[in-house]
Amino acid sequence: MTGSTVSAEEREARAALSRLVEPGNARLSRTVAEHGAVVVLEEIRAESDVLGNRSDLADRLRTLDARADLERAAEQGIRFVVPGDAEWPTPVEGLDACGRIEGSGGAPLGLWARGPLRLDEVAAQGVAIVGSRSATTYGTTVAGDVSARVAHEGWTVVSGGAFGIDQAAHRGALAEGRTAVVLACGVDRPYPVAHQRLLEFVGEHGVIVSELPPGCTVTRGRFLTRNRVIAALSSGTVVIEAALRSGAINTASWTNELGRPLMAVPGPVTSAVSAGAHQLIRNRGAVLVTRGDEVLELLAPMGARTLDEPRGAETPRDWLDPVEKRVLDALPVRRAAGLASLATRAGLARDRVRRSLEVLAEAGFAEACEDGWRLGPLGRST
Amino acid sequence: MTGSTVSAEEREARAALSRLVEPGNARLSRTVAEHGAVVVLEEIRAESDVLGNRSDLADRLRTLDARADLERAAEQGIRFVVPGDAEWPTPVEGLDACGRIEGSGGAPLGLWARGPLRLDEVAAQGVAIVGSRSATTYGTTVAGDVSARVAHEGWTVVSGGAFGIDQAAHRGALAEGRTAVVLACGVDRPYPVAHQRLLEFVGEHGVIVSELPPGCTVTRGRFLTRNRVIAALSSGTVVIEAALRSGAINTASWTNELGRPLMAVPGPVTSAVSAGAHQLIRNRGAVLVTRGDEVLELLAPMGARTLDEPRGAETPRDWLDPVEKRVLDALPVRRAAGLASLATRAGLARDRVRRSLEVLAEAGFAEACEDGWRLGPLGRST
Repeated sequence: MTGSTVSAEEREARAALSRLVEPGNARLSRTVAEHGAVVVLEEIRAESDVLGNRSDLADRLRTLDARADLERAAEQGIRFVVPGDAEWPTPVEGLDACGRIEGSGGAPLGLWARGPLRLDEVAAQGVAIVGSRSATTYGTTVAGDVSARVAHEGWTVVSGGAFGIDQAAHRGALAEGRTAVVLACGVDRPYPVAHQRLLEFVGEHGVIVSELPPGCTVTRGRFLTRNRVIAALSSGTVVIEAALRSGAINTASWTNELGRPLMAVPGPVTSAVSAGAHQLIRNRGAVLVTRGDEVLELLAPMGARTLDEPRGAETPRDWLDPVEKRVLDALPVRRAAGLASLATRAGLARDRVRRSLEVLAEAGFAEACEDGWRLGPLGRST
Repeated sequence: MTGSTVSAEEREARAALSRLVEPGNARLSRTVAEHGAVVVLEEIRAESDVLGNRSDLADRLRTLDARADLERAAEQGIRFVVPGDAEWPTPVEGLDACGRIEGSGGAPLGLWARGPLRLDEVAAQGVAIVGSRSATTYGTTVAGDVSARVAHEGWTVVSGGAFGIDQAAHRGALAEGRTAVVLACGVDRPYPVAHQRLLEFVGEHGVIVSELPPGCTVTRGRFLTRNRVIAALSSGTVVIEAALRSGAINTASWTNELGRPLMAVPGPVTSAVSAGAHQLIRNRGAVLVTRGDEVLELLAPMGARTLDEPRGAETPRDWLDPVEKRVLDALPVRRAAGLASLATRAGLARDRVRRSLEVLAEAGFAEACEDGWRLGPLGRST
C-alpha cells in the first residue's frame, strides 16, 4: 500500500490474529502494540498462554494461511488496513485507553475495509449518527435530515447499517455526501440481508469497515465491540431515538470514554424510543441538538462556526421605538381607553402618548375611536 | 388581618397606588419600600414628580377612595395582601432585584387575591407550569400529567389561566391538589372568558392572584409584568411547549433572574411549539425533565429526593454471571457453532464454555443441535 511502513509479515500476523481472536480484547491489543503481532503469533505458535487461559489457539493457527486470506480478500476488493499504513485512522488508537465496557476494549488490530473512501478521511471528518432499530417515522425523518445536512458540509456519516435510524442516516448522507458503515461481521456479508443494496451502494461510493475478517458472522458480543469502532472513527456522536438499554447508548458511552462530543436529539417524552436520548441529555452530558446546523456548530473547531440563538420571526412590533412600544402595551386588549388613562398606564406624559399614538395609528397598530384609542389591525395580530 | 403588622393607612395607600400606577414599576416599588406608601402618596398629592414625568396622578388620586375600594373588594371575597401581612409571600420581594426586563420589574406593592388558599402557602411550595396557548395534544397531555403528579405531592401549581398549557396545568392540579392562577387583569374578571368556570372553581378551591385591582382589564404590558409574579410565587418553573418568542420564555427569563430552577420538557424537534423549550435547555440552563418525578427531584431540598437513573426493564440476561454472558455473546445470531469455535470467540477454555453452555441451555438461552450449539428461544428474544 502507498506510504505504508508496515512489513508484509506484520500485516499477515495481524490478519491471522484478527481471525484467531475476538475483537475488543484489550490485553491482546496492548501486547501487540508493545511487541508487534509477529512476536505475539510466535508465542501462540509456541503454545504460550497469551490470552490468560489455555485454549486451542495454536491448533487453529496451524490451519490458517493469512497470506492467502489477504489475497482472497484483495480479489474481492477488500483491504486490511493496519497501524503504519498511510490510511490508518490515528484517532482509532485512542480506543486502547478504554477498558471499562466489559470485554470489549482495545485498539483494533486492523480494520478490514471495502469501498473507495479512505479510513483516515473518514476519521478526519466523521460523525456518528446512531439510534434505534425500532425507530419511529419522526426519528428516521430527523436522522435523514441531520445526516443530509452534515454530509452536505463534507462530513462522513458513520453508522452501523442497521434498520431504523442507521439506515435513515446512511441514506440521508448518500443523498448529499459520504457515509461509512461499520459492521459486526465480515465486510463481504450483507447484514442485515434486507440492506444488501444499501451496503452495495456504500461499498461503491463510501466504505464498509469491520474488525472481523471476511466471512465472519454477527454475534451479540460483536455488536458491542463494533460500537466502539463507530465512536472511534467519529469526531462526535449524535444519538437519535434510543431506548434506555440499546446499542446507541453503548456507542454514546464509548464516545464519552473517548472524550468526544456527545449529542442527542430530543423527542416526545411519551415515546419509549426517545427515553435513552433524554437520559443522555439529563445524566450523561449530551448536548441537545435539534438540527444539522447545531451538530456542525459543536463539531467545528472552537468558535469556527457559531449559530445565532434561534429567535422567532421579526414582527412589525420590532420596528417601534421603546416609547411607542410602551404606549402600545398600555392599550387594552379588547376595549378602548382615553388618553388620560393611557398616559397613566404607560407612565408617560400625555403629549408623548399622543405623539406615539399618532405614529402607532399611521402604522396600523392603534386606531382612534369614539371612546378614545384602541388596538388597530396590526396591534391585534402581533 | 390575622397577624398583620400593617396599618390601615398603609394598606389603603398601597391600594390607591395599585390603582394609580401600572404594575412592574421598579422605581416606585423601591421608593415605597424605602419610605412607605403613605409618604409616596403624600408626594403625589403635592404633585411632586414621583415617576420622573409630569402626569395626571394627582388629579386621578383626588377621584379615588381606597378605603371604599377595599371594602367593595372584601364584599366580593377579594383581599389585598401587602408586605407585613402574615400571608405575604416573602419570596415575592426578591423581584425587586430584577430590573432587566424592560419596564416590568420591582416587587408588587400588594397582591389582590380571591380564594381560600393563602399566598404564603403557595410560595412555600409552589411550582410554575407554563407554556404555549397554541399547545398540541402532546403538550397538554404532558402538562396535565406533570401537574397532577406534583400537585399530588403537595405542590401548588402556579400558572396564568390561559388556553393550552396553562389550562391543562390547572386542570391536572385540581384533580390531585392545589392550584393558583395569576391574572393580568383584576381577579374579579374572567380572562379568558371561556375559562370562567375554571376560574370560578379555582376561586373556590385555590386562589386567583393579581397585582391589578378589581375591574382592570388586560393589556399586553400587563401580561409581561404578570409573568414575573408567576415566577416569583414559585420555587421553580417548568416550561412545556413554548414558541421561541412567547410569554413562557418571558416567565423562564424571570425564573433565571430570580436564580430559581428552570426546567423544560422536550418535544419533537419538528414542532414549532417545542422550539422554545429546546432553546431553554440548550442555551438558558434549563434542566430537561420528562415527568413529574423529575420535577419533584429538582425542587426538593438537595438530596431529599433522588431518582435512580431510569433504566430498561430487567431482562433474563441480567441473571447470568459474566462468564455465561460471554459465552452467550459468542453464539452466532443466526447459525450454530461448534464448541471449539465458541471457546475461541469467548476467549475461554473449552471446559468452562461447555459448563456455561449447559447452564444456558437449561435456562433456554442456548440449545444443542446437530452442528453444535445455537441460540435458544430466550437467547433470540433478548
